[in-house]
Amino acid sequence: MSGIYTIGLDFGTNSVRALIVDVATGGEIATAVWDYRRGEAGVVLDPNDPHLARQDPADYVDGVQACIRDTLGLADTQKGFSPDRVIGVGVDTTGSTPLPVDETGMPLAFRQEFEGDLNALAWLWKDHTGHAEAEEISEAAARLRPHYLAKCGGKYSSEWFWSKALHCLRAAPQVFDTAYTWVEMADWIPALLTGTTSPDALKRCICAAGHKAMFNPAWDGYPDEEFVASLDERLARLRRTLPDRAYSIADAAGSLTEEWAAKLGLPSGIPVAMGAFDAHLGGVGSGIRPGMLVKIVGTSTCDMMVSPLDAELADIPGLCGIVPESILPGYYGLEAGQSAVGDIYNWFVNSMAPGGQGRGSHEALTDDARRLKPGQSGLLGLDWHNGNRTVLVDQRLTGLLLGMTLHTTPAEIYRSLIESTAFGARVIMERFEEYGLSVERVVNCGGIPVKNPLVMQILADVMGRTMEVSRSEQTCALGAAMAGAVVAGKAAGGHENFDEAIEAMTAVREQAYAPNPDARAVYDRLYRLYRRLHDAFGTRECRDNLHDVMKEVQKIRDEVRA
Amino acid sequence: MSGIYTIGLDFGTNSVRALIVDVATGGEIATAVWDYRRGEAGVVLDPNDPHLARQDPADYVDGVQACIRDTLGLADTQKGFSPDRVIGVGVDTTGSTPLPVDETGMPLAFRQEFEGDLNALAWLWKDHTGHAEAEEISEAAARLRPHYLAKCGGKYSSEWFWSKALHCLRAAPQVFDTAYTWVEMADWIPALLTGTTSPDALKRCICAAGHKAMFNPAWDGYPDEEFVASLDERLARLRRTLPDRAYSIADAAGSLTEEWAAKLGLPSGIPVAMGAFDAHLGGVGSGIRPGMLVKIVGTSTCDMMVSPLDAELADIPGLCGIVPESILPGYYGLEAGQSAVGDIYNWFVNSMAPGGQGRGSHEALTDDARRLKPGQSGLLGLDWHNGNRTVLVDQRLTGLLLGMTLHTTPAEIYRSLIESTAFGARVIMERFEEYGLSVERVVNCGGIPVKNPLVMQILADVMGRTMEVSRSEQTCALGAAMAGAVVAGKAAGGHENFDEAIEAMTAVREQAYAPNPDARAVYDRLYRLYRRLHDAFGTRECRDNLHDVMKEVQKIRDEVRA
Repeated sequence: MSGIYTIGLDFGTNSVRALIVDVATGGEIATAVWDYRRGEAGVVLDPNDPHLARQDPADYVDGVQACIRDTLGLADTQKGFSPDRVIGVGVDTTGSTPLPVDETGMPLAFRQEFEGDLNALAWLWKDHTGHAEAEEISEAAARLRPHYLAKCGGKYSSEWFWSKALHCLRAAPQVFDTAYTWVEMADWIPALLTGTTSPDALKRCICAAGHKAMFNPAWDGYPDEEFVASLDERLARLRRTLPDRAYSIADAAGSLTEEWAAKLGLPSGIPVAMGAFDAHLGGVGSGIRPGMLVKIVGTSTCDMMVSPLDAELADIPGLCGIVPESILPGYYGLEAGQSAVGDIYNWFVNSMAPGGQGRGSHEALTDDARRLKPGQSGLLGLDWHNGNRTVLVDQRLTGLLLGMTLHTTPAEIYRSLIESTAFGARVIMERFEEYGLSVERVVNCGGIPVKNPLVMQILADVMGRTMEVSRSEQTCALGAAMAGAVVAGKAAGGHENFDEAIEAMTAVREQAYAPNPDARAVYDRLYRLYRRLHDAFGTRECRDNLHDVMKEVQKIRDEVRA
Repeated sequence: MSGIYTIGLDFGTNSVRALIVDVATGGEIATAVWDYRRGEAGVVLDPNDPHLARQDPADYVDGVQACIRDTLGLADTQKGFSPDRVIGVGVDTTGSTPLPVDETGMPLAFRQEFEGDLNALAWLWKDHTGHAEAEEISEAAARLRPHYLAKCGGKYSSEWFWSKALHCLRAAPQVFDTAYTWVEMADWIPALLTGTTSPDALKRCICAAGHKAMFNPAWDGYPDEEFVASLDERLARLRRTLPDRAYSIADAAGSLTEEWAAKLGLPSGIPVAMGAFDAHLGGVGSGIRPGMLVKIVGTSTCDMMVSPLDAELADIPGLCGIVPESILPGYYGLEAGQSAVGDIYNWFVNSMAPGGQGRGSHEALTDDARRLKPGQSGLLGLDWHNGNRTVLVDQRLTGLLLGMTLHTTPAEIYRSLIESTAFGARVIMERFEEYGLSVERVVNCGGIPVKNPLVMQILADVMGRTMEVSRSEQTCALGAAMAGAVVAGKAAGGHENFDEAIEAMTAVREQAYAPNPDARAVYDRLYRLYRRLHDAFGTRECRDNLHDVMKEVQKIRDEVRA
């Protein structure tokens, strides 16, 4: 124990967590969570529009104060800890979660004239109200600026910055017109703590800008004004408020103001690192480096790799984003992911609620599924219950299961759902490798790796790699705390750079999951069959045009529901 | 009411039923069921061999007596009924259910030397111990006598006569060698009642001979001795015990013996019609005639049509059998079927046991599924959970479902399972029509048409035909009673022929299910997609060779399980 600490702040969908970390060892001193108060578990919904999901930024302001205070309270009882030994703060958040703000950087949501106006709130990552705008942006980019799409998987998402701003412009012009600019939550919170919310002072992080707003140094920053104006003339005004430069987590957003230092009980003037997305700081907290695939495995997955900035790197088709320094300074950040993993298991347990006789819980199904051998069920499925993010980038794909007989059991289906998500994970890994990023290690973090050894073993057997598990259960907050240690710098007792921080502060658990050769042999055969289904239903390369069967069925569904 | 009656005997898998019917009206006077006593619910199983399913013929002997006595007891209380006004008896049974018998026609099972020998029992229709022999017979016929296969759907089944006898020859040579011949249960029971079990006197019915033993007048009866000897020299001895002629249900097996008349409490000397399979007499009991498709819809389906003997009739690929007079005298009988229908719904309710909250019963799921619109679920499936009998004739196919999302509910899946079985039913209907048998009416019988209006409505909407439902709930036994009335003849108060018997004794219910034009339009679109999945996974016409994906998965399964 060095007796020197940083704090990571992790803003999730429903709550915010603070974590105090020893910068010398990565030892976690104390943590506390504050649940958002507004909306349903922090998410403001519209009963008339299932696409809408917003957040009240007042929860961010209240939350940061409450959870740091609570954490400091817990830490006070730890030997040797003292708040004045905190040398830096880092922040991760969900994203793309942009807020409309005024000329002072204050959220419009705080202005009385917009009280009760859902469009003045923060537009949460999972808000899909801009789905039509997303398609419009994708089409325009494909036509006018195809290189924009090449870095974000070939398709612009409804969850991202420009889709949301453009939708607001159309659906709520009074909000759009009043807003001076839009700021990602990941930028706004560090700015709040450091008194830099005013548009002149505000720094934007490369993580959000690059992955969600088509910012790239290759074309001098954000998309050019001509392109933005082609979508809507009024959108060009927003474009003009965006800076030319974006910053990585090696940079500080500023220093903690006296006012916030007093509110939080921390030393004033300590640096607050640039914010970044939770998954990316989870990668940092897992010790990401070249040759390592970090998988955050929860309701969905985020699969990350990094590649040195000075090495050649091709555009990799189907990846969510390839952005310089978005994950780790000095490296390209590459992000892939599966749209649903734990969510599929949860769907089966909660919505299908199988097994009547009390054998339908995750625990019971896992217990029964563990006794099955690979291949024994005769089932094979496609894990597309929430679409396919990587490598097909197609939200309209759906799940598939074949091999059912009159003897098929719930545990067999449960195991086959796990297997299908593992096959999906292998597709992502192989895509990285096909484009020259060799996967030498796989480190897992998130809820499932800790809770479900069966999922880890199946991943190992399907992917043919040892599954390691990150030591920390709070890798995102840990990554944020590491950013705090780096921006604090060596002189203050922090770290020179992220190489040092990773070395000192991250580790994997002793228990790892090595592939079983027999299981691997069976899964290799099943994976080849999975790939055939994957290509038949997911690509246009199927000569029998099965690729449109799923979508035609959904088209009929949508027509009938309309 | 004419005051003249016949009795139909319906030998099922677990029990035997007797039904007393008024020949003038088809009015059902009384019915009783006797459950078999031996084995598990009448089926003798071998814990070491899941393929084995046998029956003790002692149950047939005890059962016929008990259930006729019980039925007469119930009928005595009906106004006007008297046992001496019974003018004939008809019999239907399961099949192919052959028994090894000695020179007197007595089942070997009744000889002390074979006590406890499962191979000396009746080999129940669902006994699959001869699966290797079935493949051997199919291969030999394809090579040496391809025309044999053309009439039975292109493949000889393990459930059929020759597979069972050949397997016995190899697995239990002492039984095979002691047996003088093998007799179908459908032939043996009428012979028992009429004292004609001795091989010289025994008549064989065209129904069993034609559909299960490759008998056809086109090649002078049973398969020729040279072919049978090519399978095994010893099998030729069995072939030599089989007659040149087979009989339809318009023929009597003989007259009720005094001994049996006394046992049963019926007049001696009344005719007993030739037996036939339950499904076929169900067709008769539903009033089958040209232009009418009769569907027996239960755990599986049997789909039957008839076509005049003097009209041209092509071999129809994929049908289970095309046999002159097998269903109705004077007509070709054409049999198709789905390997599982109600069994699929039962699998979902009993094995998957979905919906935890008490919404998982057939009643609750039907209730929820009824509220859904066609196409609304976005689900589409293949109903091959027990293979595909017609038109693909492939037991190794399995179920498939696509379109699942994180919001898919048990009721949506339940409805999609019903829809998939309806699409399967439409494939069969279209196959009949493609080969010139126009389907003008569809009459349904069996358990599901009476119990589940939703299934009937979906069948109507998918098939584009009004679904009529047979009046009788016991159409098989009714058909048997009609055969009793025809063999009794006009002079005795019965009927001249089946045209007359059908006219007098059968009817459909008032409630029929007409296609809803809106639903039909949606289902037409979904059916086209179903056909694409059907052809991709079920035929070799798929250019992407998806046809082998299901089978490869099952191959892996079988290897892993072995």
